[in-house]
Amino acid sequence: MSETIAVIPGDGIGREVVPAAVRVLDALDLGLSFVMGEAGDDTLSDTGEALPDRTVELVEDSDATLFGAAGETAADVILPLRAAVDSFANVRPARAYPGVDAVKPETDLVFIRENTEGVYSGIESEIAPGITTLTRVVTDDASRRIARFGFDYAVERDDPVTVAHKANVMRATDGQFVESVADVAEKRGAEYETALMDALAMQLIMHPEEYGVVVCPNLAGDMLSDLAAGLVGGLGLLPSANIGAENALFEPVHGSAPDIAGEGIANPTATVLSTAMMLEHLGYDDAGAQVRTAVEKTLEQGPHTPDLGGSASTEDVASAIIERL
Amino acid sequence: MSETIAVIPGDGIGREVVPAAVRVLDALDLGLSFVMGEAGDDTLSDTGEALPDRTVELVEDSDATLFGAAGETAADVILPLRAAVDSFANVRPARAYPGVDAVKPETDLVFIRENTEGVYSGIESEIAPGITTLTRVVTDDASRRIARFGFDYAVERDDPVTVAHKANVMRATDGQFVESVADVAEKRGAEYETALMDALAMQLIMHPEEYGVVVCPNLAGDMLSDLAAGLVGGLGLLPSANIGAENALFEPVHGSAPDIAGEGIANPTATVLSTAMMLEHLGYDDAGAQVRTAVEKTLEQGPHTPDLGGSASTEDVASAIIERL
Ligand SMILES: CC(C)[C@H](C(=O)O)[C@@H](O)C(=O)O
Ligand SMILES: CC(C)[C@H](C(=O)O)[C@@H](O)C(=O)O
Repeated sequence: MSETIAVIPGDGIGREVVPAAVRVLDALDLGLSFVMGEAGDDTLSDTGEALPDRTVELVEDSDATLFGAAGETAADVILPLRAAVDSFANVRPARAYPGVDAVKPETDLVFIRENTEGVYSGIESEIAPGITTLTRVVTDDASRRIARFGFDYAVERDDPVTVAHKANVMRATDGQFVESVADVAEKRGAEYETALMDALAMQLIMHPEEYGVVVCPNLAGDMLSDLAAGLVGGLGLLPSANIGAENALFEPVHGSAPDIAGEGIANPTATVLSTAMMLEHLGYDDAGAQVRTAVEKTLEQGPHTPDLGGSASTEDVASAIIERL
Repeated sequence: MSETIAVIPGDGIGREVVPAAVRVLDALDLGLSFVMGEAGDDTLSDTGEALPDRTVELVEDSDATLFGAAGETAADVILPLRAAVDSFANVRPARAYPGVDAVKPETDLVFIRENTEGVYSGIESEIAPGITTLTRVVTDDASRRIARFGFDYAVERDDPVTVAHKANVMRATDGQFVESVADVAEKRGAEYETALMDALAMQLIMHPEEYGVVVCPNLAGDMLSDLAAGLVGGLGLLPSANIGAENALFEPVHGSAPDIAGEGIANPTATVLSTAMMLEHLGYDDAGAQVRTAVEKTLEQGPHTPDLGGSASTEDVASAIIERL
């Protein structure tokens, strides 16, 4: 009956923050079983593949996956992993926390990023020497699916919905996106506003408190969620969930941070919060809430890793979270 | 001998800020002649075309163009106008000013945005019902041209260069961009760093003081410059120049702001600063510097329009700038 979690630390600080998060999960004593998988730069050197088939199979066969980060091979690892769980929605909450210096302390946003298409189609070529093209794909199906997910999510959070797009320039593709979203909204009588993604970038910085759930095409979600990380104190705080119909993968938004890897000072918060999202996804709502509260207390009262101005280690922070569970 | 400037106020606050900026230009007594052109939503209603041929011809035949803003028809007006001056570089300075509340007062950036390709290619179609595509185009020629322009610009400002891209995902297209830039840099021994555009969005918010000139693909430049507007106090402050080999067009980065249009309270700063860029482009360096200084004094000492927390009108601010010339 117990769920199996695939655990893929990856490279760099992934190998530090993922074990820390697993310690937090272990402390909850939920009877989860963990199976370890390899992926990333080191795996490429060792095996000739950044993402071996057996890692993909592990992910496919597990109830959920916790992924850390990958280095140079990030795109070769994370994009196929997101596909391996058939994830169509990338959920990226970005909020400021008491106790953490934030450019905009009133930020409390959730980006719902379309996770399958846009400029992530992989369809590129050099059609003549020095002339390259990429085919950006936007479909009605994927746009409706992300809209439904976004509207549901917003109802749960009782948040307003903003739909980011650039349909004034990308008329057919983002035009399709906006039209599909409008149709879903009309069918369910959902309220929302649209915003040009460039104007939205400015508004989110100046007035983040006016926004809640932001539904975005793939690349817009990529940029806007990193922008929001800038508002709340850095990528060390942003968890994410890649949600498919039957499987899901959870990962911090940050990368492998080669500059601090190996020092044991990476902030585990984003990964621990990703496990809270995982717990809630698996139905362990109380445990998820327990983890969130423990993380919030630790952010408020310390200890803090150096990225937040402290001098604690990854393990110190994990231990403090565990004590507060 | 005197230059002819095409003046296209457009819609909304364009009809307020452009006349204000022309008053400033007039006060300099440089003997410039102005010819007025029509474009925008009202022009569409009146003539059936948002951008009549005669306006395009006017722009082509002038030494430079000052454009205000357009409403719903913005993309139909501004993209062809940028093409009419054969502009390959869109120069967007974003700096904070003493006297203006800024999220990040240490911001002093210039975005050098590629102005001809990327997702602005206009090549889109619905290839099957509900399945749409856009062809993103990146060429060696355009990438080299914007790189050369960016490196020259950075030398003049004595600024570091950052090249934004997403080549980890858009491998062929942004891969081409990064490769072309690298080749230009190598030939002239120029120093620069590259940055993933998502990570850069975060860094610019957290540490804008570490950046100077940012060379970007078209859409990245669109988003990042609006992001920077958020850092310095809003779009009311951002001028821009669309530079071609033989002609150029100058415009505020903001739009037609229908919410405040007609009230006479729009901030003319972005448009006046755009004319300073125009003057410098035409070789009137002293006049350009005079305008900048007058704008800076007015931002520091007031009066301010409501977007900056004041209660002055567009004309009050223009008059204050003129007095300080
Ligand atoms: C590593 C890269 C492929 C990835 C993305 O673009 O989605 C990353 O930026 C992210 O946001 O998770
Ligand atoms: C109106 C639109 C076509 C334009 C652009 O995307 O370039 C605008 O956002 C800008 O930044 O000038």
